[in-house]
Amino acid sequence: MLRTHHCGELRIEDEGKEVVLCGWIQRSRDLGGMTFIDLRDRYGITQLAFNMETDADLCAQARELGREYVLQVKGKVTERSSKNAKMPTGDIEIVVTQIEVLNEANTPPFTIEDETDGGDELRMKYRYLDIRREVVRRSLELRHQMALETRKYLHDKRFLEVETPVLIKSTPEGARDFVVPSRMHPGEFYALPQSPQTFKQLLMVGGLDRYFQIVKCFRDEDLRADRQPEFTQIDCEMSFVTRDDVLETFEGLAKHLFKAVKGVENIHFDRMSYADAMKYYGTDKPDTRFGMRFTELNDLAQQKGFKVFDNAELVAGICAQGCGTYSRKQLDALTDWVQRPQIGAKGLVYVKYNEDGSLKSSVDKFFDQDQLKGWADAMEAMPGDLLLILAGETHATRKALGELRLEMGNRLELRDPNTFSCLWVTDFPLLEWDEDTQRFYAMHHPFTAPIKEDISLLENEPGKVRANAYDMVINGVEIGGGSIRIYDRPLQEKMFDALGFTPEEAKKQFGFLMDAFQYGAPPHGGVAFGFDRWCALFGGSETIRDYIAFPKNNAGRDVMIDSPSGIDEDQLKELHLRVLKP
Amino acid sequence: MLRTHHCGELRIEDEGKEVVLCGWIQRSRDLGGMTFIDLRDRYGITQLAFNMETDADLCAQARELGREYVLQVKGKVTERSSKNAKMPTGDIEIVVTQIEVLNEANTPPFTIEDETDGGDELRMKYRYLDIRREVVRRSLELRHQMALETRKYLHDKRFLEVETPVLIKSTPEGARDFVVPSRMHPGEFYALPQSPQTFKQLLMVGGLDRYFQIVKCFRDEDLRADRQPEFTQIDCEMSFVTRDDVLETFEGLAKHLFKAVKGVENIHFDRMSYADAMKYYGTDKPDTRFGMRFTELNDLAQQKGFKVFDNAELVAGICAQGCGTYSRKQLDALTDWVQRPQIGAKGLVYVKYNEDGSLKSSVDKFFDQDQLKGWADAMEAMPGDLLLILAGETHATRKALGELRLEMGNRLELRDPNTFSCLWVTDFPLLEWDEDTQRFYAMHHPFTAPIKEDISLLENEPGKVRANAYDMVINGVEIGGGSIRIYDRPLQEKMFDALGFTPEEAKKQFGFLMDAFQYGAPPHGGVAFGFDRWCALFGGSETIRDYIAFPKNNAGRDVMIDSPSGIDEDQLKELHLRVLKP
Repeated sequence: MLRTHHCGELRIEDEGKEVVLCGWIQRSRDLGGMTFIDLRDRYGITQLAFNMETDADLCAQARELGREYVLQVKGKVTERSSKNAKMPTGDIEIVVTQIEVLNEANTPPFTIEDETDGGDELRMKYRYLDIRREVVRRSLELRHQMALETRKYLHDKRFLEVETPVLIKSTPEGARDFVVPSRMHPGEFYALPQSPQTFKQLLMVGGLDRYFQIVKCFRDEDLRADRQPEFTQIDCEMSFVTRDDVLETFEGLAKHLFKAVKGVENIHFDRMSYADAMKYYGTDKPDTRFGMRFTELNDLAQQKGFKVFDNAELVAGICAQGCGTYSRKQLDALTDWVQRPQIGAKGLVYVKYNEDGSLKSSVDKFFDQDQLKGWADAMEAMPGDLLLILAGETHATRKALGELRLEMGNRLELRDPNTFSCLWVTDFPLLEWDEDTQRFYAMHHPFTAPIKEDISLLENEPGKVRANAYDMVINGVEIGGGSIRIYDRPLQEKMFDALGFTPEEAKKQFGFLMDAFQYGAPPHGGVAFGFDRWCALFGGSETIRDYIAFPKNNAGRDVMIDSPSGIDEDQLKELHLRVLKP
Repeated sequence: MLRTHHCGELRIEDEGKEVVLCGWIQRSRDLGGMTFIDLRDRYGITQLAFNMETDADLCAQARELGREYVLQVKGKVTERSSKNAKMPTGDIEIVVTQIEVLNEANTPPFTIEDETDGGDELRMKYRYLDIRREVVRRSLELRHQMALETRKYLHDKRFLEVETPVLIKSTPEGARDFVVPSRMHPGEFYALPQSPQTFKQLLMVGGLDRYFQIVKCFRDEDLRADRQPEFTQIDCEMSFVTRDDVLETFEGLAKHLFKAVKGVENIHFDRMSYADAMKYYGTDKPDTRFGMRFTELNDLAQQKGFKVFDNAELVAGICAQGCGTYSRKQLDALTDWVQRPQIGAKGLVYVKYNEDGSLKSSVDKFFDQDQLKGWADAMEAMPGDLLLILAGETHATRKALGELRLEMGNRLELRDPNTFSCLWVTDFPLLEWDEDTQRFYAMHHPFTAPIKEDISLLENEPGKVRANAYDMVINGVEIGGGSIRIYDRPLQEKMFDALGFTPEEAKKQFGFLMDAFQYGAPPHGGVAFGFDRWCALFGGSETIRDYIAFPKNNAGRDVMIDSPSGIDEDQLKELHLRVLKP
């Protein structure tokens, strides 16, 4: 080793030791008679001391060294005269006797500090420097620990980690595949997996009983903020289980991770049907750190002459505690907020429940005090509260009210990143109708089993069939989801039929899975977690990019290595391809 | 759970328990009054018993069930009348009271037994059935355990597992990249990594100090037997280390795996220079489970009138102990063997050292007894041994003699798969001359550091420069390799120059790494192991395919999912591509 110790470990007990350290210059201070250098490595920072009186040459040499130079220094551990209680090594410094400059460094394009002056794109271009910042390094360390603890838990539960192939077959169902032209098979392509879904089901057919994998997946979608073309899943599958077995097993995983990584115990999981989630929170991933559930007011608020309500499919509101003092200006701003295209509400009705028990609303013309009091009672409001009400088509109103609820949660500071509220959302619809293509799509994927009682509806009322599917939601973030699978061929064929696949199309796409189902498939189910997102949640960040060592930008481009890029004409020829001019 | 126990756990102590088991029918035997079914799951086999006298209906039902049907059975654990000591559950059976057929099964196309009647391609097509065979399942379990123990060891040594990107940039150096057309960036391509080499070096520049990853890599080569287009590496890198630090760290990994996975202790690693490996074994991955090292005979055997020897650059032989009794026919067969194109020797000279001390050779015309005795002494042969001698151009002769040595090792049963001989081969040449393109290529990759003493040769005698590179070889199998890296830009530029890269080409290909080296790169080095191969070695198999859940065949095709395959014209259009007719 080029060092005897790293930069985070020396303590006052080590005083007098001759040591060799290696690292980068975090900063240096020249105090005339003395020069100090903070030497940094992954493990910490240790102060180096140079004295003009005792060794003028060495001190002069030290003064020439720039930020981020790589040094190997030899010296003696010495007690500091002015200690720094904030640093683990703050009681000591190294009185240096020898410096070796292992490498010089240009001045980095941004400061290597937690609060850096570098913008996003610049930091991505020099990601190798960004990673030197403690805050980024800690994110990668967290990710390492999450993966380690996930594997530990699942191994203990007898899951086997099995690597499934990356070069697979393109399936047009769902979002877009990346494809890989084959040189050896002209005109043919592999595809990169959007998930190992079919392979993990085949492993269950193969009798492996419990499978998992922490695995890269790929999706060639138009990127939205915080989507990456390659992302990592914790992918799991179990045989001979019911839904509740799956939920309990992975609640166990979540609890283990909370304890091992965050030191948080007493995590409890609620369960909520999709129907309730939509009805009370307007979303299938409710943030249940706070209440503010929706109250539907159709019975109380319709047929009183207010056209907006009378013509609405749904009238529903939330009660924002203690916001009864909102000014006219604040309420106007809130109205503007809900009318933004991202939220899409037509307007906002408010009722202020004054401290004196009176009620003041934006619809006083249509409703008297008793009626408004009726709403307030239905919403369990107290004097001082503010009722916020939206109306319109059911789904759109719920969605907008859900956004408003989150906004009010933010304003009232009800969304503490150090509080965790976990739940399973269950009983999703099996199928979604698509207006454009006039057909149903699988809400999860075409292997999701319907709930037994609903199978009879599959032929004539497919939209009403509930899936035996579930999502894990923590603090309003969908961490993962899964389902009990279809495992027999007749039901799978019925499902493909409902999805509008001809038997030929089904055979072409999923023939090998359908074939496998003829050879004794066990009942099975599983789940897949978005590992990047889970890391971000535990790290207290909103962006998954911070938890990926080398992320791509929102255009799917790696600005550090400049990829994607053109390739040689020769290489194209070997692949039997020509690029078309746009 | 659909079961109370799995099929491997019930013992005589469980007698009397009411249990529920799930699994597949391994076999059933109808003995008239009794019917027995062996029920199998991942964990083992349990015998189910049905009695015609006590429950004729159930027994009749059991008799209808075919191989590989999936059952859920309820019954009572009962002591067997005739126990089977070979099965862990052999003391008991389940007297069944209820059968639920969870799924039927077609008759599988091959038997689900360790010794199956299915050929390779058939088993690959139905890999999900192949995986049900205990021997395949155990291979996948071994792989799981290897990965787990690798992570445990490296975590304890403070390595961080960091995921590097799969969608990267194409580099024409070395073997061929798979490429991935970008839909969002017309005419541009990502490439799949042949290794995360540059990224792990960037992580070192980023100060992560110790990195590892168990990671899929990709190579679009013409496939040879036992090559897969996607394969898995244990990829590692460390900062502030010398070569010996790297070797010791990963000897430690190997020893840990030997102990944890194979139960083998007292593993010792030898070190051998590339030059010695070639001189004494004719290969850079010698199987050192046995001796039979080469003896060079130029001094003793040339200038005696035998043209074949006199014109040869090298005359060298091995001593096959106890083979002095080989018949003429056996020797002729051996001569044929070395003359096969795969071995490529022109002929074979033998000397039989008879028990009576006399020597009989195929070149008695040219050499007398004393001369032959001189060879025998040089080769430390004893009466009863057989000397086998090849001659010709040095490299080709060594290669052929190396193959002959392995063949004789096989015949003499010196290559016991349960004996392990480990070594590091070091000091490889830095560069290889390629006759076709009349240029040097990096033997490992262009970031490998030369040995310090040899740097001065780089400009004028590049072929003589030794690399600070090393391979781990176990039982003649190259398990992994690596090097100390170049970490400063001037030396890297010199290296690119020796490789015939113009500065522009170097910048285009590796610009981001060269840039990174300007910002304070630490000294670093690392290693990458072929994980599939290591699993095969530990599993006692020669083919890595057995240790991959869903391997591709020698044409790079997944015959189960039928991939690669054609894609839609629409999809091609979106990718701005046209397929050229061959």
